[in-house]
Amino acid sequence: MSAAPKARFQSFEETANPAQGAGRLAALRKEIDRRGLDGFIVPRTDEYQGEYVPPSSERLAWLTGFTGSWGAAVVLREAAAIFVDGRYTVQVREQVDPAAFSPEHLIENPPETWLEKHLKPGQKLGYDPALLTPDAVRRYQKAVTRAKAELVPVDGNPIDAIWTDRPAPPCAQVVLHPIELSGEATDSKLGRMRAKLENLGDAALVVTDPHAVAWIFNIRGGDVSHTPLPLGAALVPAEGRPTLFMDGRKLSNAIRDALADIADILEPAALDKALRDLGAGKARVRFDQGTASQRHVGLLQEAGGTPDVGADPVALMKAVKNAAEIAGSRAAHARDGAAVSRYLAWLSREAPKGHLTEIDAAVKLEAFRSETGLLMDVSFPSIAGAGPNAAIPHYRVTEKSNRKLEPGIFLIDSGAQYRDGTTDITRTVAIGAPDAEMKDRFTRVLKGHIAIATAVFPKGTSGAQLDSFARRPLWEAGLDFDHGTGHGIGSYLSVHEGPQRIAKLGTTPLEVGMMLSNEPGYYKAGAWGIRIENLVLVESREIAGAEREMFGFETLTFAPIDLALVEPALLTEAERAWLNAYHAKVRELIGPQLEGEDARWLVEATRPI
Amino acid sequence: MSAAPKARFQSFEETANPAQGAGRLAALRKEIDRRGLDGFIVPRTDEYQGEYVPPSSERLAWLTGFTGSWGAAVVLREAAAIFVDGRYTVQVREQVDPAAFSPEHLIENPPETWLEKHLKPGQKLGYDPALLTPDAVRRYQKAVTRAKAELVPVDGNPIDAIWTDRPAPPCAQVVLHPIELSGEATDSKLGRMRAKLENLGDAALVVTDPHAVAWIFNIRGGDVSHTPLPLGAALVPAEGRPTLFMDGRKLSNAIRDALADIADILEPAALDKALRDLGAGKARVRFDQGTASQRHVGLLQEAGGTPDVGADPVALMKAVKNAAEIAGSRAAHARDGAAVSRYLAWLSREAPKGHLTEIDAAVKLEAFRSETGLLMDVSFPSIAGAGPNAAIPHYRVTEKSNRKLEPGIFLIDSGAQYRDGTTDITRTVAIGAPDAEMKDRFTRVLKGHIAIATAVFPKGTSGAQLDSFARRPLWEAGLDFDHGTGHGIGSYLSVHEGPQRIAKLGTTPLEVGMMLSNEPGYYKAGAWGIRIENLVLVESREIAGAEREMFGFETLTFAPIDLALVEPALLTEAERAWLNAYHAKVRELIGPQLEGEDARWLVEATRPI
Repeated sequence: MSAAPKARFQSFEETANPAQGAGRLAALRKEIDRRGLDGFIVPRTDEYQGEYVPPSSERLAWLTGFTGSWGAAVVLREAAAIFVDGRYTVQVREQVDPAAFSPEHLIENPPETWLEKHLKPGQKLGYDPALLTPDAVRRYQKAVTRAKAELVPVDGNPIDAIWTDRPAPPCAQVVLHPIELSGEATDSKLGRMRAKLENLGDAALVVTDPHAVAWIFNIRGGDVSHTPLPLGAALVPAEGRPTLFMDGRKLSNAIRDALADIADILEPAALDKALRDLGAGKARVRFDQGTASQRHVGLLQEAGGTPDVGADPVALMKAVKNAAEIAGSRAAHARDGAAVSRYLAWLSREAPKGHLTEIDAAVKLEAFRSETGLLMDVSFPSIAGAGPNAAIPHYRVTEKSNRKLEPGIFLIDSGAQYRDGTTDITRTVAIGAPDAEMKDRFTRVLKGHIAIATAVFPKGTSGAQLDSFARRPLWEAGLDFDHGTGHGIGSYLSVHEGPQRIAKLGTTPLEVGMMLSNEPGYYKAGAWGIRIENLVLVESREIAGAEREMFGFETLTFAPIDLALVEPALLTEAERAWLNAYHAKVRELIGPQLEGEDARWLVEATRPI
Repeated sequence: MSAAPKARFQSFEETANPAQGAGRLAALRKEIDRRGLDGFIVPRTDEYQGEYVPPSSERLAWLTGFTGSWGAAVVLREAAAIFVDGRYTVQVREQVDPAAFSPEHLIENPPETWLEKHLKPGQKLGYDPALLTPDAVRRYQKAVTRAKAELVPVDGNPIDAIWTDRPAPPCAQVVLHPIELSGEATDSKLGRMRAKLENLGDAALVVTDPHAVAWIFNIRGGDVSHTPLPLGAALVPAEGRPTLFMDGRKLSNAIRDALADIADILEPAALDKALRDLGAGKARVRFDQGTASQRHVGLLQEAGGTPDVGADPVALMKAVKNAAEIAGSRAAHARDGAAVSRYLAWLSREAPKGHLTEIDAAVKLEAFRSETGLLMDVSFPSIAGAGPNAAIPHYRVTEKSNRKLEPGIFLIDSGAQYRDGTTDITRTVAIGAPDAEMKDRFTRVLKGHIAIATAVFPKGTSGAQLDSFARRPLWEAGLDFDHGTGHGIGSYLSVHEGPQRIAKLGTTPLEVGMMLSNEPGYYKAGAWGIRIENLVLVESREIAGAEREMFGFETLTFAPIDLALVEPALLTEAERAWLNAYHAKVRELIGPQLEGEDARWLVEATRPI
């Protein structure tokens, strides 16, 4: 027996232990009773409202066992429930003791509805105002009022009081993101932000999204997994110097000197005083509706200020990549495409032998990326799905769920963090001879992918207006997929970045320089799954005779799409031409980076059809 | 010289007289000053918030001269403005004296923005609460508050006080819409409404939309042009008999007897007391957000009730047509298609001679429809556009704007009201030899039309998700059109009916039985315009192997699409097959209704390509 394969940036351990839930629930109930409360809300988010949180903030996982990226528990004296969305309905039943926490569907039976049924008149439901946005508080407040109960902010999270072995908060060193990669100095970014503040009529912007902080100050860190974030906040006034609120231990003297040129640097706790001071001056202050906490908004308001809670203007600025970021992304994708292509070549040789597992497959892909010498992290834990596991769009392999790659199809969705760019790619490959249904479905997904890749659309068009192009070939066969077609992506930042999306609700108009994923799929429940994902860049399109300013997509991701799964008869001439041109570009860009049997495999894998 | 052609249901008179504006404005200012006000809001809508209003309610037209279907004027002591949307920016300048009323763009410079600039602190702006919805009042209130002024409801509209030759309110006889055509008795409709009220937790529904009143009670009338509406309201309690509020003079004894079986019948003014009684009983009552007036909502609230202002549940019920309504629509379309086809045959013979005008063309089409013997009205004034007039999507020909049909293309958008169904069809035809650009554009519009006609989509899909299918062929050439792709349509009711739409903001999921128009277009400003419109019906689709419940469209409208404008090389095989199959169906359905040269023309016009 060989040793279990290891990855540097991913763990396949099953950390959840349902058995601990009941004891921890009892301890929490004791603690909230001690504080004179009848219940408490435990969201998955920490005070930064991000997708990845440090171990010290995994309160929901500690309490319930549930490790998904989104969810919340509500604990009352006699009932407790955990709310998760459709992605996690299976997972929650494996990780959480249902006798302790009843699993509920976040959309079909949200906490608000559940509370109306379980909360008794006069009861006090506590919440940590540092962890909830004003919008979330409003929603809970409505339900609590209907139940004739009381919603009470607590000072100090009760979980922290009973979590005796809680890890220390992260304290990774901050590094500068150089101008060659960021493409725009902080001064320039601040200038553009001040113009936006003036338009909004606000005296200052409270930057509570660490991604925005990283973007503004051109810094990166390592406080959470997979996204190079330094956790911290900032205050950008319409006039005068901004303040960066960050744990001083994360800043080397050199970094501190560089940042001190453009900002005052204070400890995170100092944001409270800054908000009170702004409030005392009757200032109107912008807060990000997605990440600002009720606690921060309340501090300003109680001191006499006017909170203006809305979209963080930085989100849209950050979403539009500049020339340096685009060049960085192209370089990252050329490198990543070679690693992925080497991996696919390896997979084509090894998978048919029948010995590989999903974990082997995920580890090996990380290894090929590591060999580039430039891999900083994976941009998310790989989704490596064999057989029925691939039918779970957000599947994450653990030692417990690990399956052998068997004849049929195998799906791997993965990405890398390089200093010059973040990648995200999904390939679905045949192992052995795929059946006709697999080929039909794969080809329909490919047609949807091509319909997005080749879309041309007028300025002002949103991703919502493009989403159905990816679905029509599936609809024609009575099929669909239950996720968006594309999400935004950061520049050596989060693999999921807003506000633009290609999805039913993606109403942000697309702008030149925005990057998105293009990832239609098809999932045959209990059997297998297909997804084809490339990243695309919104670019300007010159069309002879055009009456509108037109945009289109440039595909950034280059790795072969498995021709063994393509049914050429289902493709139009134009679709076939796109596929052949795409593969020609893969050969041209990736070919020179491969050697020996990998290079020979690539020629075959990218042959014209 | 021949006499000017006449139509029964349409007038081409230019009724606006800009010269009267200044005098009427002065009179209004005097009247509002007399009432202690500094300004007054004059919406185009009447108390029923409909698209067509009776002459007695055309207050905006009387005051300003503007006859468009949507707009508002705001009159202050020293300034007055009229606000219209993009459809009417040209028309308003022709109909209104700009020295009296400054023309403003309703979206770019809405009344709220204008008021903030022109209203002075302490001033009192009056409005008629019977003519504004609570939502409109809220929007005005916000602006008035920002201007530190006061928004004041008036009792009795000041226009009515100075409008000495105001026509009498309409009083057309009500007729029953028989069960063979309505397909569902009022009792059954009331039962379904009561179930909805129970879900909503409301004690009653105030039906303020006359279309909904007509639908519930299976009645029709003639109080406004083009839509067979009896103006009136109703109250439907969750338990007990409903009340119909309608001018008793409109009801013959026979109709009154029939209605008395199912409802109490009271004069319209009695609704006030009914609302006060409900309020006194602390009832929670549903109001339609689209048509309920601030006045009615206020009456309930002041008496102690709780208004629940939201979507009228009748709208969605009415939008889903039953088997009798669908059969009626098919019969109406077979008849209307024959009239339109005879017309197109006539046009093909007469138009090239060069003597026809837009009015001739509109009148002749009405005449062919009248010859069916079943025409009750046109469903809207025909849009008959020659040359540059066709580039105005909502163009309406008047004696002043009337143009000769010259070589090139001619667009005619028209519809009929028959007792069994309402139609709406646009055809664009070549006169002489169309140029290559016309053919290219027409074919792209046709491709978009076919993309909608052939769409297959899962249950839950909205029109917003389909809209881009109609645009993609135009987008590929850098072109687009600035209106929605489709609107709902009534059953011998309004030609524009909600809530479903095929448009960027059409988020209502489509349901089997809904009817919509499919009408992409292309407009070359100052030159010509193209639109191809058929009505479609949402139907269930059986697809072998389907995993979702799938829907598609059945096209209801049958008349030739001009092949002289089709560039076959631009069509895919599937598109060509759709066009040929469509024309085969036209030949099959319409052919037997035509004679002589019309019949011979149809065979040629529907030949396979």
